Amino acid sequence: MKLVKNALGREVPAEVNGRKALPFKGIGKHKPSGRKVGPPIPTGAAYTSSKVQQDLDTMLDTMDLHDGMTISFHHHLRNGDYLVNMVVDKLAERGLKKLVLAPSALFPVHEPLVQHIKEGTVSHVLGSMNGPVGRLCTVGGMDSMAVLRSHGGRYRAIQDGDLHIDAAFIAAPTADVHGNANGVHGPSACGPLGFALADSLYADQVAVVTDNLVPFPTFPWAIEGGNVDFVTTVDKLGDPEKIVSGTTKVTTNEDRLKIASWAAQLVRDSGLIEEPEFSFQAGAGGMSLAFIQYIAQYMREKKVVADFARGGSTKILVDMLKEGLTKFILDGQSFDLAGVESLRDNWNHIETNPFVSYNYHTKGCFAPRVKASVLGGTEVDLNFNVNVNTHSDGWLLHGIGGFQDAADAYMTIITVPLYRKTNPIVVDRVHTITAPGEVIDAIVTDHGVAINPKRQDLLHRLKNSDLPLVSIEELHEKAISITGKPEKPQTKDDVIAVIEWRDGTIIDSVKQLVVEED
Amino acid sequence: MKLVKNALGREVPAEVNGRKALPFKGIGKHKPSGRKVGPPIPTGAAYTSSKVQQDLDTMLDTMDLHDGMTISFHHHLRNGDYLVNMVVDKLAERGLKKLVLAPSALFPVHEPLVQHIKEGTVSHVLGSMNGPVGRLCTVGGMDSMAVLRSHGGRYRAIQDGDLHIDAAFIAAPTADVHGNANGVHGPSACGPLGFALADSLYADQVAVVTDNLVPFPTFPWAIEGGNVDFVTTVDKLGDPEKIVSGTTKVTTNEDRLKIASWAAQLVRDSGLIEEPEFSFQAGAGGMSLAFIQYIAQYMREKKVVADFARGGSTKILVDMLKEGLTKFILDGQSFDLAGVESLRDNWNHIETNPFVSYNYHTKGCFAPRVKASVLGGTEVDLNFNVNVNTHSDGWLLHGIGGFQDAADAYMTIITVPLYRKTNPIVVDRVHTITAPGEVIDAIVTDHGVAINPKRQDLLHRLKNSDLPLVSIEELHEKAISITGKPEKPQTKDDVIAVIEWRDGTIIDSVKQLVVEED
Repeated sequence: MKLVKNALGREVPAEVNGRKALPFKGIGKHKPSGRKVGPPIPTGAAYTSSKVQQDLDTMLDTMDLHDGMTISFHHHLRNGDYLVNMVVDKLAERGLKKLVLAPSALFPVHEPLVQHIKEGTVSHVLGSMNGPVGRLCTVGGMDSMAVLRSHGGRYRAIQDGDLHIDAAFIAAPTADVHGNANGVHGPSACGPLGFALADSLYADQVAVVTDNLVPFPTFPWAIEGGNVDFVTTVDKLGDPEKIVSGTTKVTTNEDRLKIASWAAQLVRDSGLIEEPEFSFQAGAGGMSLAFIQYIAQYMREKKVVADFARGGSTKILVDMLKEGLTKFILDGQSFDLAGVESLRDNWNHIETNPFVSYNYHTKGCFAPRVKASVLGGTEVDLNFNVNVNTHSDGWLLHGIGGFQDAADAYMTIITVPLYRKTNPIVVDRVHTITAPGEVIDAIVTDHGVAINPKRQDLLHRLKNSDLPLVSIEELHEKAISITGKPEKPQTKDDVIAVIEWRDGTIIDSVKQLVVEED
Repeated sequence: MKLVKNALGREVPAEVNGRKALPFKGIGKHKPSGRKVGPPIPTGAAYTSSKVQQDLDTMLDTMDLHDGMTISFHHHLRNGDYLVNMVVDKLAERGLKKLVLAPSALFPVHEPLVQHIKEGTVSHVLGSMNGPVGRLCTVGGMDSMAVLRSHGGRYRAIQDGDLHIDAAFIAAPTADVHGNANGVHGPSACGPLGFALADSLYADQVAVVTDNLVPFPTFPWAIEGGNVDFVTTVDKLGDPEKIVSGTTKVTTNEDRLKIASWAAQLVRDSGLIEEPEFSFQAGAGGMSLAFIQYIAQYMREKKVVADFARGGSTKILVDMLKEGLTKFILDGQSFDLAGVESLRDNWNHIETNPFVSYNYHTKGCFAPRVKASVLGGTEVDLNFNVNVNTHSDGWLLHGIGGFQDAADAYMTIITVPLYRKTNPIVVDRVHTITAPGEVIDAIVTDHGVAINPKRQDLLHRLKNSDLPLVSIEELHEKAISITGKPEKPQTKDDVIAVIEWRDGTIIDSVKQLVVEED
């Protein structure tokens, strides 16, 4: 396999699964050419009978299925999803082989795929793999290279023709007989369905599967019936308790609270919260939720209102909306019931999708309009590069999520503990680069805050702050002094996965891990 | 010019403005091939500075403008629109020539275009022309052939690549700095902006012009900023009193009330209103409003609720929604203030666009889900063909609007007086076919109701009705007996406009009218 060095010095394949691949060139350096995909022109004359199929099997009988086809799924049901396993089991029963899976993300619940991959029903995965499938991939268990993309990058890839989907299976908590679908009603309500939008627009066959079929029209139309070929029902799309949490919980760990409070102080002391157009983004993890609570308190003190807060929505964010601390929530996924209900009932809680929020190949998405974005990571390094995909030991266990896209904010803050168990988190060189240091502005750890020296403007903003500002080198040395210098994971030469930057270029390769035989 | 006969026996050009044209083949007979347009792939790297241009002139300085380019506008501001004249005046000042205008529709307020056409700034119009520009077209005043399309047909043409737009100018009653736009807020609020959706997706340059620029985000996003290149402001987009009526008025004319009541009775007596999935569509004209009032009364008597009512919304339709007589309004344009306010404030009043409602080249639009569609016309003939474009005297004064699309309903009812002044309305042969008799199910006049004999099922449904059912021939004879047989308009051989069917084939030609010299 021919490897070339990209702008970050990482060796990446010149070709991925038979297609020419471009090495990462730096932020904004790759100029795309060509045109978006134009899907085949359909005619209403072919859709005069009902789209509703009696059951999943009847629908599969009707669809054009063949070996080697690419099928897609979406992770808005998270670890509660039943659909992926149901469909792939049925395709295996039908004897289909070498299927390419293009999920937006897989979760531990999808462990049965491991067997399907071993048996040849599934060849490889073009998408994020959280958990067991990622583990299989790490040791070379797939026929071809995995391609990991961010939420925005996945939309881009489908739109630009880099990822062709033969059949999309869209889990729809509510769908009408026309194929309009949303995630805010029904027993499996999950919130937004935006991860499936690109598939609905560009896949050859679009199948909506629901456990809440209603008459036309249901509203909102996260997925539009005019793009849908088939609709069918299943008893249950998933496990509601795993689709959304009953509640999401703020961390109680003292070190993590310290990190969250420093991140919030960083936003306050930079002056951002008092400037026009303030907005922020944070996730649903315990530390992110703590950050949101701290920032809310600073906003109350300063009597400021955010123009918008970017979800993943949670009760804590919803409460800020109700309290008037933010004008809008722009929500890509709802993590708890309060988030789903607010999205359903509050006009100012807006459903978004990766086209509007994160797709770099648009005439602007809103990611760069976010002023402060707070994100986690598995490792950061002396160049401020961040890894969210592999663990320090080399296992590929996480997708990119919206990380690369959210890092387009005015101030991107990484919140990480300095070390986990015996692993330093601030390392000399990350095992995998998910995002280049160029887009990372601050690393907040429980042992101090490092500002990227490229952001002299930020350092200037912080000149009166009492935050414990340190250099990234100091953080690294401190970490090593505690954990010792860990051994690097041993890898073979084989590239088992590539990490795409959001513009479609390859930012890093993940190599096959050398593991002791079981 | 080579003319060919289409499936209705009408002579239509084999080529329109240098492009091959297909003759109409019958409903559902034309099978499209090829792919939808794939617009050029943009990159966020080119949109890092503000899209907001200081004023219209600055924006025009920034845009790529050239002779012969196609520019588009939309008619959601109706006869109150200022934008078309403002922009075309400025382009004329800049000396641009041979511009092709692709408006969704023009209105009498756009009379200044007549001069721009005569002076060569504008070459011809690919769109609907209500009033003076249509008059100019009728006497051969344009360089090339006009092409008239329905609302759904226009979306289809843009999507399918038959109508390429170099620059779209979208009048936005509210827009944010990102280019997101809607029509429900601001001093020029008009309701939906759906007529501009296709342009925003497929035009090379997309310019949003507003008189209510707000911070990001405004919501809803009828137009998404990710598709928008430029945003600018003007003092006033239009005359609010002409954008929407203060109130829309029910007819008080006795003959028209009779027609409306018979149309409603037809829907009742057919049994449709008592069947599941009942829905209806009627416009904002005085007779349509009367129909809605009658049907509402029948629904109260039968204690039924419509699954949806299709707008053009008006206070009368909004009152039905509030009363619970319909679950939803699906609204393509709001005709009065009550319509706009309801669209803004009521979750069950849903904004639609021609993709979801009317585009035949989708995997199904919702037009065929409407059970009863009540439409007007300028003429109908013995074959149930309907003309809505030309008057009996041959003048091309009206666009197609949604006529062809709405005629896809289960029961399409044409409400027309038997004659107007000295003109019979039920004629032997319409001057122009806008929609073929194949899709027209009933003609309701003040002298009786004719059911299309192809709809034996409808006749069966009506066997116990006391409606004055007559044949179309009887209606024609009655009309002639009152008005006498009128002279047909005299035309030259030159085709000045073609009427496209919603699938892109040519259903009829409009020939240049012979008129006495002024």
